[in-house]
Amino acid sequence: MLEHGGRLQQAAITYGIALPDWLDLSTGISPFAWPVPEIPAQAWHRLPEDDDGLVDVAQAYYHAPQLLPVAGSQAAIQALPSLRGPSRVGVIAPGYNEHAHAWRRAGHEVTCLSAWSLLERADELDVIVLIHPNNPGGERFQREALLACHARLRARGGWLIVDEAFMDVSPDDSLCPFTARDGLVVLRSVGKFFGLAGIRAGFVCTSRPLLDALRDYLGPWTLSGPTRHVLKLALADRDWQAQARGWLRHGSARLAEVLLMHAVTPTAGCAFFHWWRHELAPSWHHALAERGILTRLFDEPRSLRFGLPADEAGLLRLDQALASVRLMGMT
Amino acid sequence: MLEHGGRLQQAAITYGIALPDWLDLSTGISPFAWPVPEIPAQAWHRLPEDDDGLVDVAQAYYHAPQLLPVAGSQAAIQALPSLRGPSRVGVIAPGYNEHAHAWRRAGHEVTCLSAWSLLERADELDVIVLIHPNNPGGERFQREALLACHARLRARGGWLIVDEAFMDVSPDDSLCPFTARDGLVVLRSVGKFFGLAGIRAGFVCTSRPLLDALRDYLGPWTLSGPTRHVLKLALADRDWQAQARGWLRHGSARLAEVLLMHAVTPTAGCAFFHWWRHELAPSWHHALAERGILTRLFDEPRSLRFGLPADEAGLLRLDQALASVRLMGMT
Repeated sequence: MLEHGGRLQQAAITYGIALPDWLDLSTGISPFAWPVPEIPAQAWHRLPEDDDGLVDVAQAYYHAPQLLPVAGSQAAIQALPSLRGPSRVGVIAPGYNEHAHAWRRAGHEVTCLSAWSLLERADELDVIVLIHPNNPGGERFQREALLACHARLRARGGWLIVDEAFMDVSPDDSLCPFTARDGLVVLRSVGKFFGLAGIRAGFVCTSRPLLDALRDYLGPWTLSGPTRHVLKLALADRDWQAQARGWLRHGSARLAEVLLMHAVTPTAGCAFFHWWRHELAPSWHHALAERGILTRLFDEPRSLRFGLPADEAGLLRLDQALASVRLMGMT
Repeated sequence: MLEHGGRLQQAAITYGIALPDWLDLSTGISPFAWPVPEIPAQAWHRLPEDDDGLVDVAQAYYHAPQLLPVAGSQAAIQALPSLRGPSRVGVIAPGYNEHAHAWRRAGHEVTCLSAWSLLERADELDVIVLIHPNNPGGERFQREALLACHARLRARGGWLIVDEAFMDVSPDDSLCPFTARDGLVVLRSVGKFFGLAGIRAGFVCTSRPLLDALRDYLGPWTLSGPTRHVLKLALADRDWQAQARGWLRHGSARLAEVLLMHAVTPTAGCAFFHWWRHELAPSWHHALAERGILTRLFDEPRSLRFGLPADEAGLLRLDQALASVRLMGMT
């Protein structure tokens, strides 16, 4: 298993800074969380039921003709490679590394390629796994280019898998509405946009036969009662969703401004984070951590990802820390 | 996938009785639920962390040298058959049918045997799956007999898997303390004893190598933040646990009294349910359902399982319904 999480706790130990004193920008999760109301006792007491209305609400939110609730897109990432025979699989790089890991573990032949190489080499591959918008690379794709790529794969029984974990701010770019087509699989995550990383819930949108195979593979009761209750309310809360899109766009623009002021020019980004590719990324990561600001460091390629501060106070703190790091001559 | 749940909703339609008017005795889940307090917002907002203290609390509660939290024992039931090569597997019958289903699906050779045949034929099998106490059969085993059976299997690289979903009222019979031994796997479920069927949480207790393989197979974040929060509190609440054992023992004894009064003599049972094997089980099931009382009907062998009513009012209602059914001459 790849190691995740615990980074903040590890940083607290490494840098001798208490947990509450950190500005944690190391995740791509929205700092604007949907306000979870009290959970009715029945949600804890009774077995979750498939026909509780969650699927209808989710289909409306994602504009998907059919879908399956799963325990985080992680559950789908792990299950999908078991649902087809040995395949040549192209996975976007740099990207969320659980994808390549899961396909390799299931015995497939995995090649990691840049976004553009992947689309060009569709005819040499059986399965293509994209992240859209990409994390951390930030690449975006034209809907038509993706549908054309899918059509080429589908003609040979292949799959196009698109991980849309960060798509909620730009829903018009989603491929969910097209997932009645065989071989098109879209993964959606609830935690990022709704700021609920602890909920561990996501949805798989794909055509009925694969959806049924996945449902059979994952078994009953993949989500807890309280999770289903919260999902139904959050996915239906259109007013909050519209506000949150505004907050994220504004927060992302403000973050870019602050980074630019200090010549930390984002290589790419989306509404949830900015990504900065730079040879000195490890030194910047270290210097910011010494100042109680945790970013996410990537080794290959050397880069930093900055999540959104929750407010102006957080932005000011980042601003001052970046200024102080630059004074050290690190540019 | 085997179909579960939805039985109460189906019965409401079949018998034209509104959902709130049912006395639902169709599950083995305790009607005495641990009182879930308010969930802190952080449990929803942050990614769950493995080192949040849950494992320590659970090890103390189960007296297990090591364990892995899983999304219900269902998750472990599905995963374990993937973690060994083709095997001859003996599964207790009648029992919870997800076990045999999962082993068959993974391509193993599955034989369903009575509790006693299983132990006798240990030398012809690679894996034995028991439920202790059995559901619905109610069979109980001597700890020494199980440990001897495990030793025979282990000598040939085999496994003894014991599903202890209903063990919490008789913790001294648990094999959890012995699970440092290779090839001994104990599954524990939180939902039954704590009355939290919606929580979808359980634990696997086994030796480190298999535990690591299972952790790798299931991937990160198998439980939501709120579920981990509730588990930590409930598993540490010794006063409530002692009370709940008393409530379940008393409730089970009262249920047996009421059943006996009407010549519905339990074939077996435990603190969570009573089981009645009878050729006329389908007719009784139907007649009770007409009176708004849902029991669990098994076809093979023909039998009824009665879960515990939550209070004396529920017992009285069952009492009156049984009397009325007997008046129909159905004995």
